[in-house]
Amino acid sequence: MTKRCYFFGPDGADGDAAAKPLLGGKGANLAEMAKLGVPVPPGFTLTTGVCHAFGATGALDADTMAEVWASLARVEALTGRTFGDASRPLLVSVRSGAPASMPGMMDTILNLGMNPEIVEGLARATGNGRFAFDAFRRFIAMYGDVVLGVPKHGFEELLDGPRREVARTLGMRADEMRPDELRVRVPDHRLGEQALRDIAARSLALVEAHTDRPFPADPREQLAAAIGAVFRSWDNDRAKTYRKMHDIPESWGTACTVQAMVFGNLGDTSATGVCFTRDPRSGERRFFGEWLPNAQGEDVVAGIRTPFGVTRDRAGEDSLEARAPESFAELVRIYQSLERRYRDMLDIEFTIQEGTLYLLQCRVGGRSALAEVRTAVEMVKEGLIDKRTALLRVSASKLGELLHPTIDLDAQKTLLAKGLPAGPGAATGQIVFSADLAERWAAAGREVILVRRETSPEDIHGMKAANGILTSRGGMTSHAAVVARVIGKCCVAGCSSVHVDYASKTLTVTPPGEDGAPREAVVLREGDVVTLSVDDRAGCMWKGEVPMVPARLTAEYHELMSWADEARTMKVRANADKDSDARTARNYGAEGVGLCRTEHMFFDPDRIGAMRAMIVADTKEARTAALAQLLPMQRADFVKIFAEMRGLPVTIRLLDPPLHEFLPTSPEQMKDVAALTGATPEHIAARTAALHEANPMLGHRGVRLAVTYPEIYAMQIEAILEAACDARDAGGEVEPEIMIPLAVTRAELVYVKKLVDEVSARVFARRGALPFAYGTMIELPRAALLAGELAEVAEFFSFGTNDLTQTTLGLSRDDSDRFLGAYQELGILAKDPFQTIDPLGVGALVELACVNGKAKRPDLKLGVCGEHGGDPASIEFFQRAGLAYVSCSPMRVPIARLAAAQSALRASG
Amino acid sequence: MTKRCYFFGPDGADGDAAAKPLLGGKGANLAEMAKLGVPVPPGFTLTTGVCHAFGATGALDADTMAEVWASLARVEALTGRTFGDASRPLLVSVRSGAPASMPGMMDTILNLGMNPEIVEGLARATGNGRFAFDAFRRFIAMYGDVVLGVPKHGFEELLDGPRREVARTLGMRADEMRPDELRVRVPDHRLGEQALRDIAARSLALVEAHTDRPFPADPREQLAAAIGAVFRSWDNDRAKTYRKMHDIPESWGTACTVQAMVFGNLGDTSATGVCFTRDPRSGERRFFGEWLPNAQGEDVVAGIRTPFGVTRDRAGEDSLEARAPESFAELVRIYQSLERRYRDMLDIEFTIQEGTLYLLQCRVGGRSALAEVRTAVEMVKEGLIDKRTALLRVSASKLGELLHPTIDLDAQKTLLAKGLPAGPGAATGQIVFSADLAERWAAAGREVILVRRETSPEDIHGMKAANGILTSRGGMTSHAAVVARVIGKCCVAGCSSVHVDYASKTLTVTPPGEDGAPREAVVLREGDVVTLSVDDRAGCMWKGEVPMVPARLTAEYHELMSWADEARTMKVRANADKDSDARTARNYGAEGVGLCRTEHMFFDPDRIGAMRAMIVADTKEARTAALAQLLPMQRADFVKIFAEMRGLPVTIRLLDPPLHEFLPTSPEQMKDVAALTGATPEHIAARTAALHEANPMLGHRGVRLAVTYPEIYAMQIEAILEAACDARDAGGEVEPEIMIPLAVTRAELVYVKKLVDEVSARVFARRGALPFAYGTMIELPRAALLAGELAEVAEFFSFGTNDLTQTTLGLSRDDSDRFLGAYQELGILAKDPFQTIDPLGVGALVELACVNGKAKRPDLKLGVCGEHGGDPASIEFFQRAGLAYVSCSPMRVPIARLAAAQSALRASG
Repeated sequence: MTKRCYFFGPDGADGDAAAKPLLGGKGANLAEMAKLGVPVPPGFTLTTGVCHAFGATGALDADTMAEVWASLARVEALTGRTFGDASRPLLVSVRSGAPASMPGMMDTILNLGMNPEIVEGLARATGNGRFAFDAFRRFIAMYGDVVLGVPKHGFEELLDGPRREVARTLGMRADEMRPDELRVRVPDHRLGEQALRDIAARSLALVEAHTDRPFPADPREQLAAAIGAVFRSWDNDRAKTYRKMHDIPESWGTACTVQAMVFGNLGDTSATGVCFTRDPRSGERRFFGEWLPNAQGEDVVAGIRTPFGVTRDRAGEDSLEARAPESFAELVRIYQSLERRYRDMLDIEFTIQEGTLYLLQCRVGGRSALAEVRTAVEMVKEGLIDKRTALLRVSASKLGELLHPTIDLDAQKTLLAKGLPAGPGAATGQIVFSADLAERWAAAGREVILVRRETSPEDIHGMKAANGILTSRGGMTSHAAVVARVIGKCCVAGCSSVHVDYASKTLTVTPPGEDGAPREAVVLREGDVVTLSVDDRAGCMWKGEVPMVPARLTAEYHELMSWADEARTMKVRANADKDSDARTARNYGAEGVGLCRTEHMFFDPDRIGAMRAMIVADTKEARTAALAQLLPMQRADFVKIFAEMRGLPVTIRLLDPPLHEFLPTSPEQMKDVAALTGATPEHIAARTAALHEANPMLGHRGVRLAVTYPEIYAMQIEAILEAACDARDAGGEVEPEIMIPLAVTRAELVYVKKLVDEVSARVFARRGALPFAYGTMIELPRAALLAGELAEVAEFFSFGTNDLTQTTLGLSRDDSDRFLGAYQELGILAKDPFQTIDPLGVGALVELACVNGKAKRPDLKLGVCGEHGGDPASIEFFQRAGLAYVSCSPMRVPIARLAAAQSALRASG
Repeated sequence: MTKRCYFFGPDGADGDAAAKPLLGGKGANLAEMAKLGVPVPPGFTLTTGVCHAFGATGALDADTMAEVWASLARVEALTGRTFGDASRPLLVSVRSGAPASMPGMMDTILNLGMNPEIVEGLARATGNGRFAFDAFRRFIAMYGDVVLGVPKHGFEELLDGPRREVARTLGMRADEMRPDELRVRVPDHRLGEQALRDIAARSLALVEAHTDRPFPADPREQLAAAIGAVFRSWDNDRAKTYRKMHDIPESWGTACTVQAMVFGNLGDTSATGVCFTRDPRSGERRFFGEWLPNAQGEDVVAGIRTPFGVTRDRAGEDSLEARAPESFAELVRIYQSLERRYRDMLDIEFTIQEGTLYLLQCRVGGRSALAEVRTAVEMVKEGLIDKRTALLRVSASKLGELLHPTIDLDAQKTLLAKGLPAGPGAATGQIVFSADLAERWAAAGREVILVRRETSPEDIHGMKAANGILTSRGGMTSHAAVVARVIGKCCVAGCSSVHVDYASKTLTVTPPGEDGAPREAVVLREGDVVTLSVDDRAGCMWKGEVPMVPARLTAEYHELMSWADEARTMKVRANADKDSDARTARNYGAEGVGLCRTEHMFFDPDRIGAMRAMIVADTKEARTAALAQLLPMQRADFVKIFAEMRGLPVTIRLLDPPLHEFLPTSPEQMKDVAALTGATPEHIAARTAALHEANPMLGHRGVRLAVTYPEIYAMQIEAILEAACDARDAGGEVEPEIMIPLAVTRAELVYVKKLVDEVSARVFARRGALPFAYGTMIELPRAALLAGELAEVAEFFSFGTNDLTQTTLGLSRDDSDRFLGAYQELGILAKDPFQTIDPLGVGALVELACVNGKAKRPDLKLGVCGEHGGDPASIEFFQRAGLAYVSCSPMRVPIARLAAAQSALRASG
């Protein structure tokens, strides 16, 4: 017979930490602790197998219930209490727990086993009526919500009247206070026993009114129904979506743990607390935690009472060490043995009930990137783990936190809005609504935050001048986001709750309330101070200035990265358009430039004029004249980049973007271009209109520009090769790689190759030859499908996965934020395909192109330069696909180095 | 030893018609005629093998030249003339001739074998000095151009002085005439012997000045160099591009035929002419041709003298039949035996030199669609060919000519401009520049041609009202082109030489001159009359009214189509958005509707208001209210279409387009929508701005609309199913197929399937169930790649190859006309991928989706509804890919039926 209930208690356990698939994380860790002799309240875990059976039949069978009652009897024996007995009642918790952490997604019921008669017994037994009725009314609400489907807010509202009464007695203007104010000003512990008795009675009545039946008085009926509800919660919509988002298989199911309740709020010899085995912020190896005497776990979490430190060095006489030295000593022994057993930093929850210490939970502890790196490296030195484990344990995406200042998490602050974590770090400044003003104020020494609905190339000077950027529209690959990452600026993008009004120079935002509900709108004006912060999950805008913690590249970081570099097989390059980017990238360990976008060099105000003149030219002569102005600028830029990257390859992409990105838009700009070219503003306007495209992303760009205007590419090729000669003559080694964008046919590559041959013959005749490579982006489906043909001409491929994603999925990255949110909420797409590569669609094309390209040219060099090159999950995909390198924005180079190492380690098993 | 020269003459030939790969078309047909005893001037053909050898070494080897001289000796013997001998000189032609026709692409030299001495001999021998020097000066110019690279115009200009002199003697105001006028007013035959002697002498001097060497006097040197030049012309750029365009392999090479010259301009017993074995316009079985006494072949072609009919019934006493009864009788015997031999209608060139008839060329004759169909069917009845041959012989794309009126090819007319053959037929009317005026004038009984830079959905009422449409921008799949084909209107698109000025309501065009060079600009005003005509190669705009030939669906057409229907294995459906389209389609033999675009129903002026109200709605309530208005309209449309297509399947695609297509654009339209919705115009403008997309093609459209606004699809599904119930209850059989656009994931199809299930349950509960199918478009690369997954939900796939082409190649069909021309000119793309499917890119995805879809669901129904469904070359591809049907615009249904038959016949070998 399959075992359905796994028991744990002071006399050991049926399972252990390895039994997670069967017992869930919580159940397995409780069993492990019991096995190690750690005092845990006794209980038992119904397996995920029972969840499957329940899912199939919708009911718990008799055999299962027989095991439940038998296990419950063991709990009764161990605790000396009896379930359903009013004199010494046993109360239990019924908790969900899946093999993978799904915080808050499924249901839990506490204090189960009470009815109006038993609660009186509990009051008598504990001598604490307030405690008993508080526990009871909470149980009724939780059970009513989870098992019986009575809306939660109904129970909440029952507290409003008693709260208002307390407020009145405290002399507050109670009648004018809104319920949410009341809730903050009159915390639950202010409610006395009589109030709680009333609330409990009214809660029972509410359930009866809603369900047309009295609240179930039989504790056994309560327990059976609660177990069923916990299993059922595996299938709620929230949980399903969460699993899709986090790749948790539907087939796993949840376990359900039934455990004797212990209480930390039974008086001064009771207490509750949470500890970490090392400091979760710094990683320092010291016991770290907080506790509250006479309190429940949620009091520590809710922050209504301020908890004390557990150690004397932090909290002196208020410490647990001082107030309960025996429990403290036991706790220290326990945490040390648990950390040795788990070989990781742990988060431990404990309760002391009338002097007796119980451990309620242990799990791997959440921590800052700083702490993650430090503990990983130190544990290797302590012999707890090997380097492989250390490398795999550090979250690559969190590593970004180390490279930028972050806000002080302990500081007081008010959240105004949340958006996408588009550019790294944190920044404070006065808001401005135009790039020009950003530049002016910054030049005058002011710190500014540039706020725009969305940004365009016109805004780049302002973005550079600003400390941070906020946009109300656009996704993770919007213009603002891409540029911000390239220039390493903090950027919160797509902050849709922010309304930007350029005319009145105001920003209106309705900040979320405590419970996520919106509160009153806040209007900010030009010059008001805000702080932006970005972590790996979200971007936030905070009111005013929030204290910062500066970036710290510690010795442990450098040690970990050196291990990563030993472990990885893929190179990491950076996308860098300027020498300053290249320098940053090299400092962060980049092994070359994977993408130098030549067009970004033209957005500078002193260059865009010539660029525009070139674009609006309607004769070859006018275009050639404009190009002659641009050539020395390009050459100078390349010389500087080659110098920064001496000895390393630099891939330069010839002009790519839809020309509309450069077009003059305002009448002033048209006048400027007219003055520059000698044409009338009307002519410039007409030419601009003629260049308008319905779908510029699919338009006249990339190599198509070379087919119609070969002189543009000829100029760029000349600038690259001359710059390479200059750099070589200055004594540096250079490895230029000339890259063609948007090709879909072999013939296009042959066509440009002819240009390259002509120009190189001319330049090398003058300057002497040097080696260079010729290759192509693979960024359209046809290029991937015809990769074999393209590899006949191209010596390297660089996957442009941004555009490949746009075309493979038919998804404009400028527009898709209107519906991608709904797609993810509904679980139609698990992830934003612009952040993490779509493995079955876009990825299949990448794999196909790798195989077919290599078949035709075995030494074909393969890399990726799309935004995915800096995304750890995508890097794992590229490792499997066999790429030689990934290229990402300079600030993500360390992330990519670690992710590449992790991918290599996982690939090698 | 490989034979290099294949001889032909009165005593037979070395080769025959089957030797085309070796002798080229011209050489093989000459050999065949010689073999049949047809009198051809003797000569010989150097094989394509010699061309290959020449290509490799750049020279003709000694063995080849030995064969040339031996063959030439046979020609001398047969003609009684001697090459290089001044007393009885033999002159030869040296002509290119590839295995496939490449008209005008390669070089030819006539009258070879002369020098200043021999020409005098020729003058003496013929007693015709004018003839001899005319032949000589033409030879010098041709040889100078082709062999020696002396620019042609230099020789042309030598004629200007003598022409001006003639003009003066004729009393014209010669000094004021431009050279091109002179050329027309003073044709070559006006130049006398002395003038021609002078021109010949100056031509020789021109060559010497240009090449620094005297003109080669040795006829043998001339012949060897001319053969080399002909072979070299295989590799000129024009020829290469032509081969790419027409899929002619580079490896074929050209043959070179050297043949004794005969002259039709040696006096009254000489003549030249061109005949067809049947009437090339009607296909009638009668001898048809034209001739000129005392003339050269080019005189007949050039149209300077008006030729006579060959038969007495057409030309009376001027006929060849009357003037040279013996030659005529021989010609009739010859043409009859040739037609029996070739089993096809032939085009024959003949020359009579001093009473002796020679055939110079025979080949399959060009003909109208009408003639093509009639001769094919009649030849089956005559037992000349079988049905398979008849079906394969008729050009499917030319069939369109039969379905529309055409201009009378014999009518006098002036070409104004050429554009793309976007919509079929011909049309005459007064030009107007706005859709509104088109509608007003048409309502008043006037015939109009709508002229626009490009059209948009706003113009549809005007397009319908007009007889024809002309646009100055846009390609074969531009809005104008697509709509024109759907509604069966004549449309000339992308007429780039036309400049449209809306403000002044004028159209300026510079018509091409005779030699293709532009002439003076013509300005047309609103109300001026033009005629549009479209054949399978080009669209033309003609000045004024041009007489028309009405459409004729002959008995032969119906017979041929019935054979086609027996032969084909693919079904042919039509894309039809309205009942009138469906009726037309069914009349043309459509077997269902493959694509009913629901959005096209909303462009009617009385509906677009509600549609716009729906789109700009910013709450679900407002949207639902607008949808409630649209539902009965949609239902009524569907009922009518189901009625037209009773018994046949109708595939209805749910709302697809980027919403911007419906948005109000002008302030008036915004006001209208505001009035309709009760919102302010400012609010409508803001909402419209918010819906703007950077790349609408990749934007918020198709199934993405359903994910964010499920109520739209719910309304459409309800309208479809209710309409189907109505149609069924009215006694007709219905086969609705509900099609989802733009899906890329299985989850999207599941999501909408749930909607379909809910709505159908509700409708069928009320009305009783009926069967329907649920399927998806495959129009994005990811859908093709994931076809296996999609087939788990979809019961049918319809390939939307328009969008699949746009995304696979990253090519916007609205914008690509700016560079696709250059791509085709440079040979980078052989064909416009929007006209004929790109087999290696888009086609590979189609094939992959077919295989993977069928693997998952063996009875998956596969079809195509993109524009490619009406393109014969694409239909051949779809046959190979295994599709069950193609769907095309109603007027192309016959073309698709024939093309499908041809594909099936070719597939079965």
